[in-house]
Amino acid sequence: MKQINSPDDLKKLGVPELKALADEIRQLILGSVSRSGGHLASNLGVVELTLALHYVFDFKKDKLLWDVGHQCYAHKIVTGRKDKFDCLRKAGGISGFPDPAESVYDQFVVGHAGTAIATAIGMAAGQVHQGKNDKIVVLIGDASIVNGASFEALNNLGLVKRQLLIVLNDNSMAIDATQGAVAKYFSKVRLSQTYEDLRKTTSNILEHMPVIGKGVEEVVEKIKKSIRMVLPASQMFESLNIPYFGPVDGHDIGSLIQLFRALLHLKHPAILHVYTKKGKGFVPAERDGRRFHSTGPFRMNGDSIGAGSGRRTFTGVFGGCLAELAEKDKRIVAITSAMCDGTGLGEFRKKFSNRFYDVGIAESAAVDIAAGLARSGLRPVICIYSTFLQRSFDQIFQEVALQNLPVVFCIDRAGVVGSDGPTHHGLMDIGFLRMMPNMVLTAPADEVELRLALEFALGENGPVAIRYPRDFVPQERFVRAACGKPFKLGESVFVKRRKDSPIAIVSYGSVLKEALEAANLLAKEKIAVDVVNARFAAPVDKRIISLLGEGKCMITVEDHSLACGFGAAVLEMASATLQGPIGKPIAVLGAPRTAIRPDSRDVQLIEAGVNADRIAQRAREMLRPA
Amino acid sequence: MKQINSPDDLKKLGVPELKALADEIRQLILGSVSRSGGHLASNLGVVELTLALHYVFDFKKDKLLWDVGHQCYAHKIVTGRKDKFDCLRKAGGISGFPDPAESVYDQFVVGHAGTAIATAIGMAAGQVHQGKNDKIVVLIGDASIVNGASFEALNNLGLVKRQLLIVLNDNSMAIDATQGAVAKYFSKVRLSQTYEDLRKTTSNILEHMPVIGKGVEEVVEKIKKSIRMVLPASQMFESLNIPYFGPVDGHDIGSLIQLFRALLHLKHPAILHVYTKKGKGFVPAERDGRRFHSTGPFRMNGDSIGAGSGRRTFTGVFGGCLAELAEKDKRIVAITSAMCDGTGLGEFRKKFSNRFYDVGIAESAAVDIAAGLARSGLRPVICIYSTFLQRSFDQIFQEVALQNLPVVFCIDRAGVVGSDGPTHHGLMDIGFLRMMPNMVLTAPADEVELRLALEFALGENGPVAIRYPRDFVPQERFVRAACGKPFKLGESVFVKRRKDSPIAIVSYGSVLKEALEAANLLAKEKIAVDVVNARFAAPVDKRIISLLGEGKCMITVEDHSLACGFGAAVLEMASATLQGPIGKPIAVLGAPRTAIRPDSRDVQLIEAGVNADRIAQRAREMLRPA
Repeated sequence: MKQINSPDDLKKLGVPELKALADEIRQLILGSVSRSGGHLASNLGVVELTLALHYVFDFKKDKLLWDVGHQCYAHKIVTGRKDKFDCLRKAGGISGFPDPAESVYDQFVVGHAGTAIATAIGMAAGQVHQGKNDKIVVLIGDASIVNGASFEALNNLGLVKRQLLIVLNDNSMAIDATQGAVAKYFSKVRLSQTYEDLRKTTSNILEHMPVIGKGVEEVVEKIKKSIRMVLPASQMFESLNIPYFGPVDGHDIGSLIQLFRALLHLKHPAILHVYTKKGKGFVPAERDGRRFHSTGPFRMNGDSIGAGSGRRTFTGVFGGCLAELAEKDKRIVAITSAMCDGTGLGEFRKKFSNRFYDVGIAESAAVDIAAGLARSGLRPVICIYSTFLQRSFDQIFQEVALQNLPVVFCIDRAGVVGSDGPTHHGLMDIGFLRMMPNMVLTAPADEVELRLALEFALGENGPVAIRYPRDFVPQERFVRAACGKPFKLGESVFVKRRKDSPIAIVSYGSVLKEALEAANLLAKEKIAVDVVNARFAAPVDKRIISLLGEGKCMITVEDHSLACGFGAAVLEMASATLQGPIGKPIAVLGAPRTAIRPDSRDVQLIEAGVNADRIAQRAREMLRPA
Repeated sequence: MKQINSPDDLKKLGVPELKALADEIRQLILGSVSRSGGHLASNLGVVELTLALHYVFDFKKDKLLWDVGHQCYAHKIVTGRKDKFDCLRKAGGISGFPDPAESVYDQFVVGHAGTAIATAIGMAAGQVHQGKNDKIVVLIGDASIVNGASFEALNNLGLVKRQLLIVLNDNSMAIDATQGAVAKYFSKVRLSQTYEDLRKTTSNILEHMPVIGKGVEEVVEKIKKSIRMVLPASQMFESLNIPYFGPVDGHDIGSLIQLFRALLHLKHPAILHVYTKKGKGFVPAERDGRRFHSTGPFRMNGDSIGAGSGRRTFTGVFGGCLAELAEKDKRIVAITSAMCDGTGLGEFRKKFSNRFYDVGIAESAAVDIAAGLARSGLRPVICIYSTFLQRSFDQIFQEVALQNLPVVFCIDRAGVVGSDGPTHHGLMDIGFLRMMPNMVLTAPADEVELRLALEFALGENGPVAIRYPRDFVPQERFVRAACGKPFKLGESVFVKRRKDSPIAIVSYGSVLKEALEAANLLAKEKIAVDVVNARFAAPVDKRIISLLGEGKCMITVEDHSLACGFGAAVLEMASATLQGPIGKPIAVLGAPRTAIRPDSRDVQLIEAGVNADRIAQRAREMLRPA
């Protein structure tokens, strides 16, 4: 591995050396992810595929597009970033996803599924317009190709009249998680294959592959005919008019190289269907690919490190509450889009399998199905990370908000998310949801409130969105007696209140913890501070505005974009309510409109300006005589 | 027609009478749309289909879900709303789309494509949970079934283990507009059919149809085998594991009734593929279905009424400018998702067919393709209505904004849209776009500025969004000399400015016209008013905030949701800039968070609080001594 500093170095190796290199790369990935956490199973699965691609193509010039992008570790290692694997997904280190700012070998900062085929179509068209012919390769997984955006792109692949290779990395990800028709179809194909079949397919493709200049179309037809005898796999793509090759063994590096060399010459788009094994080379991950899809630090026997700390997360608390509430309320059903474990629905699924729906990576359909369930009289709870919920913007607006249907949105990973970085922060949900009619937005400050918020939401007759972060619940019981009160629509909790205090800190959601710490810091300096737990961002409690009437300054605090967030809602209400001049200034704290890099959540909260020190500092500035 | 006041009345008729009724309904639709405008061609196409569905099913109890919903006129006529057809799409009248507030026969307020299959899945699952077995029927067009959300739903149809009939209304809409693979596939199937084939298919299905209680699966297999000899159409749906029947003639009302009676008994989801003719029964619409898809008032010979008024629209001006700019700048390419005519791209397509992309109803893919084109060095201009752009929220964020790619978003139909109503207003684009990194938001006040904004956008190296309404450009040249200046990033135009004026009206976009009229009204009362044409909502010009420092009140004016809009951006900036108290109040005018009903744009602007009278009234209130 030492001498591999760029893909050019790869090209000096023979197949046996490449195999040895694959093993070394696996060890590097394993070591790094065991320490830092990250995506493991998929990365171990695509090592040979990645090496073969770099061996045949020249991605300094050619374009390699990763769908989702979480499987790009081997790619990063061979494109000059192996030394930075010590600080994978850490501050000052490298991202867990592709990033053009890191390397010319990366095309897009990605992290969400289903986008690569369409961006590749755009790049291919751009090449044609500019008279260029750099090769373009998309690597996409079987869980991602069923996303609506992928399908829209496949349906438009006819726009491309030149080379564009889609490598379908089929590691049975989708079939584990969901029962979608495409997943079933792939599974049926897979079950009909023997290893011998795979080898035969490979040689069939190679045998019939065109030499440059020969009639490509004719040859493709010939190949299809010769492999159709063995396999039924091509039907789905053929009906979309997409030439299909495979399936082939994605760990046979020698054959992959030959295949890519052959497919290089096609003058039209094509799909190569490749089988890989999730977690390849690390037994615990081979056994349980789902657990090792995205993991925290672990020991080499597969045991998690730090899992036994006993600290509870918002996700975990939510999962427990929902399962408990569902015991009594038979109307509750749960929906997610490939985030069952991530959103804490494991227990619910186990107890109420017939009231649980996982639709795969299909956020739009998930929301519409929830709308249908609500329309039929049930109480759907839809669990999606904030960053992925924005993929259902239009469905939330039209099928839920406009109809005023009682769908409960449980928005996990709201706010900054730590090491996943810019593509995964959930910093826009307050903004886009509070523009919609009928939408109620709420956020719990802690464990107790999460339960109260959920009970409240299930009792409403319209849509309610509950947001909470990817974080532990506050260890101390920050919420005072007053906060234990049931949630009431639009009602905040005045946690600290003194008529003569010069400033009020109004916080939304789990950052109440920071607001209270800031108040403690200021108390030491003899500055009295009101602290309000807003609970609702839509509607905003009018009593919050009345504090301004008392001549107090105000600071709003939220784990969200400064633009359009809770603070903006307070400003809007102040503007609408106070006909006279606003006596004192309102400061809005929140994330700037820039990409916040991978780091710990704590550091990112500082960058977003919403930790205790920053809040206290801002209060001092506001109170300083001009 | 007189005696048809509900679907029950239909059921008393025989097939010949139903045929006569179909003709009468066509005349009613034709008369009404010729006066009020609306969706014509598709509505004329589905009359027999609608009658047959209501004849067989009982949609007081059973559920009929319209995808998009623009083809529901015959449905409205037979469900007790024929008397209101005089005021279709008008204030106090009925909507051009389904609306549960109007009738128990409507399930969802819809207007966007691709949602009905997923909502139907949800409703079917809800039925199962509640031990009900009302029948569910989806009617979806061939242009809509290729949308990503539709595909996600089809992929998840396996969730439903009971009856759910999808009627695919294939009127070749998609093939006219686009070249997607599915459209091509349908077209191939269609071309392989003769009328005799269609009749044969119908009798084949009926002959083999199960009687209740018989082994359904087996019979379906038998049907499939018997029709596969004739037709290759089923392959696409079969690979998704969806039982497929057809294609059949969608105007043969007798056969349709028999088919629905037979398919009623299936205990699993199925697709019935039906051919209909766009514009059926009205020769000009049969000849040019696209022109009569959505039309303004017209004469019975097909001529438009009012088209020759000579008034230019923002859409028309944009189309002309782009085509002209593209002559000189070869990097310009244009993308749309089935809105070529609606966004004024007709001329561009004609002149630069190889630089034009219409991807069909696939907004997500459209944005990703634009991102790819930009990444490859071109200057893509993507043209989408505001209401549909929200379907690409995530793609705009991840593939464009986060990458800082120079994609120009030309957002037509921004603001209230008139008679299409709540599903189609474009009231959220400022809010969701201005949260994203790197996004520049601009809006022209008139024709001259539209051109300047476009020139500016094409000169930027990052994403720029330009919004303008579905409206004529202001007739007078409202923009003063100062506004003819080229656009400069974040620079507003002070149209009227007096140091001693007590109030400033700051407008964003085409509502500058209303702001200036308001200023004129106030001038008559000797109230001096500053008027600012903001030009940019992101970034906001800091000089606007400096007006507050001069002790003026301020009113912001925009054709957008009050929440998160331009006014909110001004409030945020004032809060961030002014460390001291804000001397005077800022009033934000904009649309409330409620569904604004179909009406003229003028009336809707009053409801949104942003016409000249309302602005002037608000100014008087603010200046009145407390």
